[in-house]
Amino acid sequence: MKLLRVGTAGAERPALLDADGTLRDLSGVVPDIDGALLADDAALGRVRDAAVAGQLPVLDAAGLRIGPPLARIGKIVCIGLNYHDHARETGAAPPAEPVIFLKAPDTVVGPDDTVLVPRGSTKTDWEVELAVVIGRTARYLESHEEALAHVAGYAVAHDVSEREFQIERGGTWDKGKNCETFNPLGPWLVTADEVPDPQRLPLRLWVNGELKQDGSTAEQIFPVAEVVRYVSQFMTLHPGDVINTGTPAGVAMGRPDPKPYLRAGDVVELEVEGLGRQRQELKDA
Amino acid sequence: MKLLRVGTAGAERPALLDADGTLRDLSGVVPDIDGALLADDAALGRVRDAAVAGQLPVLDAAGLRIGPPLARIGKIVCIGLNYHDHARETGAAPPAEPVIFLKAPDTVVGPDDTVLVPRGSTKTDWEVELAVVIGRTARYLESHEEALAHVAGYAVAHDVSEREFQIERGGTWDKGKNCETFNPLGPWLVTADEVPDPQRLPLRLWVNGELKQDGSTAEQIFPVAEVVRYVSQFMTLHPGDVINTGTPAGVAMGRPDPKPYLRAGDVVELEVEGLGRQRQELKDA
Repeated sequence: MKLLRVGTAGAERPALLDADGTLRDLSGVVPDIDGALLADDAALGRVRDAAVAGQLPVLDAAGLRIGPPLARIGKIVCIGLNYHDHARETGAAPPAEPVIFLKAPDTVVGPDDTVLVPRGSTKTDWEVELAVVIGRTARYLESHEEALAHVAGYAVAHDVSEREFQIERGGTWDKGKNCETFNPLGPWLVTADEVPDPQRLPLRLWVNGELKQDGSTAEQIFPVAEVVRYVSQFMTLHPGDVINTGTPAGVAMGRPDPKPYLRAGDVVELEVEGLGRQRQELKDA
Repeated sequence: MKLLRVGTAGAERPALLDADGTLRDLSGVVPDIDGALLADDAALGRVRDAAVAGQLPVLDAAGLRIGPPLARIGKIVCIGLNYHDHARETGAAPPAEPVIFLKAPDTVVGPDDTVLVPRGSTKTDWEVELAVVIGRTARYLESHEEALAHVAGYAVAHDVSEREFQIERGGTWDKGKNCETFNPLGPWLVTADEVPDPQRLPLRLWVNGELKQDGSTAEQIFPVAEVVRYVSQFMTLHPGDVINTGTPAGVAMGRPDPKPYLRAGDVVELEVEGLGRQRQELKDA
């Protein structure tokens, strides 16, 4: 299923994109798309039955904002340097074990919302990523099979990053990863049953129409199953938590000087095959 | 005012410790202690009026668990190496600007709840801290005065840390800061009007009755007002966000070998003068 949330920011309603590409209203079936829903097999079953029955009310998609496909996100765990090609372009050795940092849930916006270049920023960069959405409480998982059983679904994430704040201002990467609007998410939460192999997903990103990133999750150093298993050794993952699993090569930081960092007026488009497409215009904060 | 939340985990009710030290029920006045309350002057005024009137129902404190004093925390921003004496003991140079890392809100437990030593941990360490609770949305603040006007109150925080995970396992500090139960908070949220100078607060921590940390917020490299102003340049602070402002000298990591890291059975007590006292027993995860 492709679950989503539509409407004005903060007042989104749950919806479903059916197999025919028709947008349908889920608000009569479930109150919202969140961790509580993802952990509730009975409620998910009701959504599935309603989708199959084909009798959910049709929503007029014209002019309707798409919000992030998940409400009340608990935390966003991010994996750094998780693609062989991206590690090479940044000059970093492939990490021996996954690099973890965090984004606060308040950085999340809808897939087509404005992204703000922070005040004082000269190095705002793009990163298309596969986001994993957790569906069951995960603690000290032991196997990859067990790890994948805790995944509710997948989405496109844009891990917007300010490189000077991240790397040159002291402290951890979090300083350049948590600016407002820095985590567009969606358009859809695609349930895991519709993503048979998360390691075969092409990811692409364009700036002002020019292809900048053109990778595949096949290039991930630590695949999704290992990432979920690994993270669960250090923190408890809860339903509604998100893991951004890293970005492939092609970011501005990896290019020759002058590096083409983002500015107000730029338009970024990104997609993960099967998970939908985002489009953001940059503005000054 | 000293605001708190009492009852079983996940079902706490709001309460107030009055000027006489009597625990009183606030659930007839406000639904909970959270960012929405702290941002609502009228609701806070109702709490204050009810406290002054002295007619809030008395709660029997005997056997009553104290929970964290704040529900629905949005994010926890932590400041690293923010005390001159602590920077010295870790061998680090005093940072040129604040070091920022994040803890997820799901690490928060009550002040006297069990703290779990993570599986595989040999370097679980203590850190008594002054926590700042945000009351107004803070974005690109310009002055220290403006920064303090965005602070709703203060609390004791225990920034429990696993040093091997934090420093020796690759990536950012977040890996050793987000284990379950790693952020005891409380007992009280003391409103800012009762903390006239946040830079004159003694902090102390004991392990099994032995004094280990004995510092003062006067030793902070970046005082509370500067921390709030600084953080607001990189991320938006929302009502109900928390900032852990760093720990003074005396952590296990700063001691000669063999360093006295925490193990199951240890008891940690900590306090910030005027903000109350915590007591945790360590157990294995």
